[in-house]
Amino acid sequence: MTPTDMPDIDVDPIRNGMDTAALFATIDAVRHAPEAGHFQFRAHNEWVRGTHNRGTIADFFGVGEERTHERTFVFNADHPAILVGQDNGPTPVEFVLHALAACLTAGLANIAAARRIKLTEVRSTVTGDIDLNGILGLDPDVRNGYSQITVRFTIKGDARPEKLRELVEQSRTRSAVYDVITNRVPVVVEVDTP
Amino acid sequence: MTPTDMPDIDVDPIRNGMDTAALFATIDAVRHAPEAGHFQFRAHNEWVRGTHNRGTIADFFGVGEERTHERTFVFNADHPAILVGQDNGPTPVEFVLHALAACLTAGLANIAAARRIKLTEVRSTVTGDIDLNGILGLDPDVRNGYSQITVRFTIKGDARPEKLRELVEQSRTRSAVYDVITNRVPVVVEVDTP
Repeated sequence: MTPTDMPDIDVDPIRNGMDTAALFATIDAVRHAPEAGHFQFRAHNEWVRGTHNRGTIADFFGVGEERTHERTFVFNADHPAILVGQDNGPTPVEFVLHALAACLTAGLANIAAARRIKLTEVRSTVTGDIDLNGILGLDPDVRNGYSQITVRFTIKGDARPEKLRELVEQSRTRSAVYDVITNRVPVVVEVDTP
Repeated sequence: MTPTDMPDIDVDPIRNGMDTAALFATIDAVRHAPEAGHFQFRAHNEWVRGTHNRGTIADFFGVGEERTHERTFVFNADHPAILVGQDNGPTPVEFVLHALAACLTAGLANIAAARRIKLTEVRSTVTGDIDLNGILGLDPDVRNGYSQITVRFTIKGDARPEKLRELVEQSRTRSAVYDVITNRVPVVVEVDTP
């Protein structure tokens, strides 16, 4: 066979550090057993002092069973001094921006691998504008959360700019965090006072 | 003056580690100069490999000027092996749950301080249910993000259970992250391909 009549099979199954064979195997597994797609993620939190609290991420449920991450992840959250905290960690709203960047970036790498595009650099900055007149209860017309979030990507890879832009567009179409932020999620709050 | 006719002023300005004088000073400052309430938070992200990427939180804008946290906070995000990652950090969607717990908890401590309730313990677990048939593109009727989020608090303090529950209710009413998750935020995505 000459190179031109070789079947269109990629000899390197891992692109951009992404194991595309495993990815397609996962998709096939869920396709054949849709209930395997039900996941529950969890975060545990313990108040420390003032606006300082500490989150722990360790356990989750997926593909029919209880699971744990390979290690327990611990994150402090706090407010900076200007917002009456001691800056022991980012503010909660900053974690939301981090989550959005992380989700769009992971998706983009997945999609690039599936499309055989080799990425060399992906950077982003997410900004969120918020008017504290809402959260401080000073103006009833101002919401508590962000009024606007903007994501700015810089992407380099072995494809035309148009193709690189399409990766971001497809990632946005399939992003869990983008969906959570742009389409509301019902939240139930329960309180136990032992 | 006898203790009974002393004015109702708290001699301990810091409750639950919260500097209530500073809190009220901040509220007053924004009341008199509403534009001081405009903040912009930011997260920067760099793709590492596969679903692994790294976020940095350092700079923000508030009360009229550029500011930086006392140190730069760095967070890895990744997928676990079962979701074709290498578990170098929590998944992006787990950071969202952490953000919600952190925001409700910080608010609760603020409100308890203002109401002169001394907290001795605040713990919470946030769970988010998600069906990956959405994100994997297998079922067009399934959304990409969480279908439901549940927050379970355990709170102890020197007030009746009813008063402790009211702290959570008021915190929810004033939570930026709760607002972001339950009421959509517009997100703009821009791409530069140098």
